[in-house]
Amino acid sequence: MKLARFDDGKIGYVDAEEIVDITVLCGVDAAAWPPVGMPKVIADFAALKPKIEAGLASCTRHRLSDVVLRTPIPWPNKVIAYPVNYHAHGREMQAGYRATQQGFFLKPNSSLSGAGEPVELPDLPGRETHHESELAIIIGREARGVARADWKDYVFGYACLLDMVVRGREERVCRKAYDSFCPVGPWITTADEVATPEELQMKLWVNDELRQSANTRDLVLDIPGMIETASAVMKLYPGDIIATGTPEGVGKVEGGDRIRIRIEQVGEMTVDVIQGHRGQTEVFSKPYEPDIIKQELKP
Amino acid sequence: MKLARFDDGKIGYVDAEEIVDITVLCGVDAAAWPPVGMPKVIADFAALKPKIEAGLASCTRHRLSDVVLRTPIPWPNKVIAYPVNYHAHGREMQAGYRATQQGFFLKPNSSLSGAGEPVELPDLPGRETHHESELAIIIGREARGVARADWKDYVFGYACLLDMVVRGREERVCRKAYDSFCPVGPWITTADEVATPEELQMKLWVNDELRQSANTRDLVLDIPGMIETASAVMKLYPGDIIATGTPEGVGKVEGGDRIRIRIEQVGEMTVDVIQGHRGQTEVFSKPYEPDIIKQELKP
Repeated sequence: MKLARFDDGKIGYVDAEEIVDITVLCGVDAAAWPPVGMPKVIADFAALKPKIEAGLASCTRHRLSDVVLRTPIPWPNKVIAYPVNYHAHGREMQAGYRATQQGFFLKPNSSLSGAGEPVELPDLPGRETHHESELAIIIGREARGVARADWKDYVFGYACLLDMVVRGREERVCRKAYDSFCPVGPWITTADEVATPEELQMKLWVNDELRQSANTRDLVLDIPGMIETASAVMKLYPGDIIATGTPEGVGKVEGGDRIRIRIEQVGEMTVDVIQGHRGQTEVFSKPYEPDIIKQELKP
Repeated sequence: MKLARFDDGKIGYVDAEEIVDITVLCGVDAAAWPPVGMPKVIADFAALKPKIEAGLASCTRHRLSDVVLRTPIPWPNKVIAYPVNYHAHGREMQAGYRATQQGFFLKPNSSLSGAGEPVELPDLPGRETHHESELAIIIGREARGVARADWKDYVFGYACLLDMVVRGREERVCRKAYDSFCPVGPWITTADEVATPEELQMKLWVNDELRQSANTRDLVLDIPGMIETASAVMKLYPGDIIATGTPEGVGKVEGGDRIRIRIEQVGEMTVDVIQGHRGQTEVFSKPYEPDIIKQELKP
């Protein structure tokens, strides 16, 4: 099943070129604040799935091209991210470590955006904002201390994710935290539709230039390992998102660019990049020297 | 007003040695999942406050000592934290930067715990877990791009916060992310009761030994600056928590210890430390060499 969030927070079932409004079937109030409907849908999915399938015919349909796709889970418990999790990316950044030694960091919920929303670049003279193409894992059940062998029991689904980042040597979280710096989508593809998560081809284009191309088989810390590591430290909740790390080929984007990410079996998402006029802070007030650009990831 | 969360998620009004159950007055369903009642109370507080005051007499009272205090906001949009934000702590860690240059990081919602809940140390041979005593700011309104001069309009209240951390050179977020590594409490003291947030004495004891003692006037990036910086990058939401940084005197805790934090005008909170039997991960599998213990914060 492909589960989306659209327009003013409605829950959608994606059916080829159409989206079916299943908000009421899911028992979600699209207008409720904070917007925590999707974690509830995920937590209750075993019971909801037959209700959704039985009720689909009675729900309103829209053409996908007529709705605005929002981020599927705007207010999860947390967004976990693994740094330097492909060797080739580690080499391009001259990083002296990998995710297996460093562990994870976090992206703020407020950075989450959707396939129908632009990435807004902050106005930071002397700074570059880079794309990082990633597979997102969506957690399906509460979990702490998951054993490697049991990882599949805790995965609800997958999505495309862009981990946008201002290059620099400041705290990684802060450079990755701007609003709209974490597009996720275009929807959640449930795990039963992704036959080989351990071996998925992922590509990213800026405009029509292929920038990143890799396979999840080349992850340093693999998907079972990421779930084992995160749940060794933290309780995971339905709706938690894991950004699995980016392969080589990261690079600069500018206002007017279009970023397209495609992950086989999962989906394809295109987001526009716009140049914003805000985001200035003393933290990023100094230009980032190009000659040290490759040193930022050294611990 | 002093707003608490207690027992199974009830909302409480703290009145000297008693706590009044105002869950129903606040329109909160204590059993709802995810537990986002308190962000709603904060967002609606201007309308709720007179209702709470008018309805108090009809609500059930308990002795504070008869309830278990939970973390006031278990599922905020985000928990923001500023590293190295007192010069004396920067010197003790031999850190080559301050929060003004580095920006913020994040703690996971799942690390939040309450005054009535123990800190559980992970079982990590060769590693120390340290206390960090901090003032927490609770955000009251949606905000992006807050000007320094306007900071007070966006603060709902204050609380005591312990930023627990496994020492090491791994990703800071991961070392600070264990469940129960972010006690907040004992309740939220609303901003109208904190006359001088820019000048608050804060002390932390382990058992009866005074370990940390500082004043918020010595913050490197002050409270207006922290709100300005965070909101330059991210949209803030009612219920967001800002951990303002720890002063000098951080140190090791062990199972059986009791940590007491007191911040004048805000409150006092005591939490027990227990030694857990979980939390092992390859990330922390190597002992942390004492001779490099002071280098971890170098960028």
